[in-house]
Amino acid sequence: MTLFSKIAAGEIPSYCCAQNDEFYAFLDINPLAQGHTLVIPRREEDYFFDLSDDELARMMAFTKRVAAAIKEAFPCKKVAMVVLGLEVNHAHIHLIPLQTEADADFRKPKLQLPADVMQQTADAIRQAFEQKP
Amino acid sequence: MTLFSKIAAGEIPSYCCAQNDEFYAFLDINPLAQGHTLVIPRREEDYFFDLSDDELARMMAFTKRVAAAIKEAFPCKKVAMVVLGLEVNHAHIHLIPLQTEADADFRKPKLQLPADVMQQTADAIRQAFEQKP
Repeated sequence: MTLFSKIAAGEIPSYCCAQNDEFYAFLDINPLAQGHTLVIPRREEDYFFDLSDDELARMMAFTKRVAAAIKEAFPCKKVAMVVLGLEVNHAHIHLIPLQTEADADFRKPKLQLPADVMQQTADAIRQAFEQKP
Repeated sequence: MTLFSKIAAGEIPSYCCAQNDEFYAFLDINPLAQGHTLVIPRREEDYFFDLSDDELARMMAFTKRVAAAIKEAFPCKKVAMVVLGLEVNHAHIHLIPLQTEADADFRKPKLQLPADVMQQTADAIRQAFEQKP
């Protein structure tokens, strides 16, 4: 199992933001901005573009809802979507609330947020997600 | 009309990599790596996540084909997908061939490739795209 499969299965704890049968969204533990969230398919696939067209369609519909919840909980100009994928071999989408494009700069120092702030962040996103089906 | 609508309509020249009735792919004029391509919907929409679920599904299927063509023409570990969107108000996906994650660092100096190299780059991607329907 990949690290992310263990997270989606609850074997490794995470700050869950949203989930359904097929996808799981949780806070990036080293966020570029408060509200920085990862979306993964529960099914293990390394390369994002190896997901089937149908899976990509469903993943984007789910991701769009998560992005809307992030934007409601943490007002921003737009939510960026970034797929890199060389560090963890399980396809994942980064969603990052943007005030400026520099907020999505992966080279900048990551935020270190206390556990209670991470929990409140995830709770705010999850509540916004659940209120807009 | 947005800058990108004018490009998709052929009113502003671009290095076209792929197109269909709904989407248009062309080289980023200030590439982070050779093969760095932009994918846009012909329909003007500012925020990527304001595209409908159906449009996103079709855009991802098209983008996946373009990414495969880039990877074939310019062998790389993976093709990154990045949507930021604060600089041009027409939704667009960056596709960037990655050897390392630093290849998708938007803060680094952009490449300046001569026109003939840009043309050869676009031709190579377009040929790969057209050979795999």
